[in-house]
Amino acid sequence: MIIDCHGHYTTAPESHSLWRQAQLAAFEAHEPFPTYPTISDDEIVDTIESNQLRLLKERGADVTVFSPRASVMEHHRGDETVSAAWSRACNDLIARVVELFPDYFVGVCQLPQSPGVPIENSINELERCVNELGFVGLNLNPDPTGGWWTGPPLTDRSWYPMYEKMVELDVPAMIHVSGSANKNFHATGAYYINADTTAFMQLIQGDLFADFPDLRLIIPHGGGAVPYHWGRYRGLGDMLKKPALAEHVMGNVYFDTCVYHQPGINLLFDVIDVDNILFGSEMVGAVRGIDPETGQYFDDTKRYVDAAPLTDDERAQVFEGNARRVYPRLDQRLRERARA
Amino acid sequence: MIIDCHGHYTTAPESHSLWRQAQLAAFEAHEPFPTYPTISDDEIVDTIESNQLRLLKERGADVTVFSPRASVMEHHRGDETVSAAWSRACNDLIARVVELFPDYFVGVCQLPQSPGVPIENSINELERCVNELGFVGLNLNPDPTGGWWTGPPLTDRSWYPMYEKMVELDVPAMIHVSGSANKNFHATGAYYINADTTAFMQLIQGDLFADFPDLRLIIPHGGGAVPYHWGRYRGLGDMLKKPALAEHVMGNVYFDTCVYHQPGINLLFDVIDVDNILFGSEMVGAVRGIDPETGQYFDDTKRYVDAAPLTDDERAQVFEGNARRVYPRLDQRLRERARA
Repeated sequence: MIIDCHGHYTTAPESHSLWRQAQLAAFEAHEPFPTYPTISDDEIVDTIESNQLRLLKERGADVTVFSPRASVMEHHRGDETVSAAWSRACNDLIARVVELFPDYFVGVCQLPQSPGVPIENSINELERCVNELGFVGLNLNPDPTGGWWTGPPLTDRSWYPMYEKMVELDVPAMIHVSGSANKNFHATGAYYINADTTAFMQLIQGDLFADFPDLRLIIPHGGGAVPYHWGRYRGLGDMLKKPALAEHVMGNVYFDTCVYHQPGINLLFDVIDVDNILFGSEMVGAVRGIDPETGQYFDDTKRYVDAAPLTDDERAQVFEGNARRVYPRLDQRLRERARA
Repeated sequence: MIIDCHGHYTTAPESHSLWRQAQLAAFEAHEPFPTYPTISDDEIVDTIESNQLRLLKERGADVTVFSPRASVMEHHRGDETVSAAWSRACNDLIARVVELFPDYFVGVCQLPQSPGVPIENSINELERCVNELGFVGLNLNPDPTGGWWTGPPLTDRSWYPMYEKMVELDVPAMIHVSGSANKNFHATGAYYINADTTAFMQLIQGDLFADFPDLRLIIPHGGGAVPYHWGRYRGLGDMLKKPALAEHVMGNVYFDTCVYHQPGINLLFDVIDVDNILFGSEMVGAVRGIDPETGQYFDDTKRYVDAAPLTDDERAQVFEGNARRVYPRLDQRLRERARA
């Protein structure tokens, strides 16, 4: 079985996106939010069958861990009430996709984060998504300001209530920023990758996993710059008098395979233990074109993993075993469906 | 000849650093800056011979392109007058190193940037350093705020006066941030690498080299995350309807080899044209320890380049030819000294 741990609903029905625009306009005008539109099953089926499901099948994967479009979580827009209503709408839409395509999609939620608002206020939505909607994880935004980075690092105690709840629910978080409100940072070309790198370095500086030995975090986009600069990170950990990274962070941190060329994927497998790598494609996502050098889609990362120098057992770990281990509720769901 | 394009005076005499502290204290107290201390030649010789020069010789390099310590440029501290006096002091100290060790060091300056202050105000110091002190390049800080990124991207026209002067003087800039005032960003583990990645993506988004075909920029630390995500950047350029990166940016952009492990260096050479890679070590800099996996210094990047799969001609390009091409004033200086 091939599990893609990183898919977003980037092709959501237009009425969903239009509602978001209307919601933000209402917020600006100090008016009540509009009523969320009725979206038919057919609309959802269309957007999925012609995009993610088609590509999933064409490329030979089986299941996608599916979450709301990351770039429009936009925790920096509006206020806490805006974020709460939008997150709920996005998560409910994911739940409908999962209900319509239970063999292919498993849900992960976005949180109603908002700059300066305590993370405790996001716990209810996480519990709703896990306990009521059957989701298996969450996306945690390390910078809800949209590129201004005025909040505390992930190792700050203000984040701890979320980590406690994650451990209690046994769900991992993908550390994922949203769209960039800062002109310096192109969202998918700079902000995403920088956030990945930043998060990893925060984890080296801190001792988060001493406090939360069972916490599991996925750093997407192949871990940002980290594998390429693995020597730098090992060296900085050493200068900071931390234990070896294998012990200090890599018992709890996972990288996906959203790296869009063969040499990058090969480097990832060369320096990072196979136990810490989850197959992911971010499809349909950041980079949608075809690589003129290969004639294949940039984000068809399964091809790169297939071509990487791995044993069959290692490849099975990356495609399936690791995801089942990192997302126990995914494993449970897959087992239940296999029996059904 | 082996030219290291990336060295900082991280071991400057203590009285220089103490003066900086006193200067900042004077600024806070609204008092005049203290008088800069007298630093003897012996003090400078000691700090260089026991550090950079010793390691340069041990590792088998010949010349270092040498600039003030990047992490303490700290353009975000004080105001424009603070930055101007500090930059002048730092650049003068580099000039003394170059004067004392003319066979081994060539100068690159820091600029008296200050948040919100027009870049025009840094031109006098650049001209002084190039025309009077014989420097061959500059470090340009893309974020003088120290991690808040509230200024414009490098492609904004407000930067153009500096680019015009660089072209006129025929000097390249290394794009290099300074220390981080933002708790989210560890300086050498996140802020530096993020800035490299950010700058490169800004260059993809813009069309800077259409306006400045002769401008040359060095993106240090192996280009941040860029080579590892080379497929992503090629794909994003394509989505943005830009020409192929070779044409769009790589005629004007160079990466150094400050990547502290063999797999990273191998990836760099695998995906980036050898014409675009300059040997650099950032020594004595970000990562000062010994890699337990190799028994060698992490930042002894010459070993990695020696071991990379390159022809002798390619290696000579990376060690020497490219640097002479990118820094014509370095080439000229080396030729003059060879004749002397």
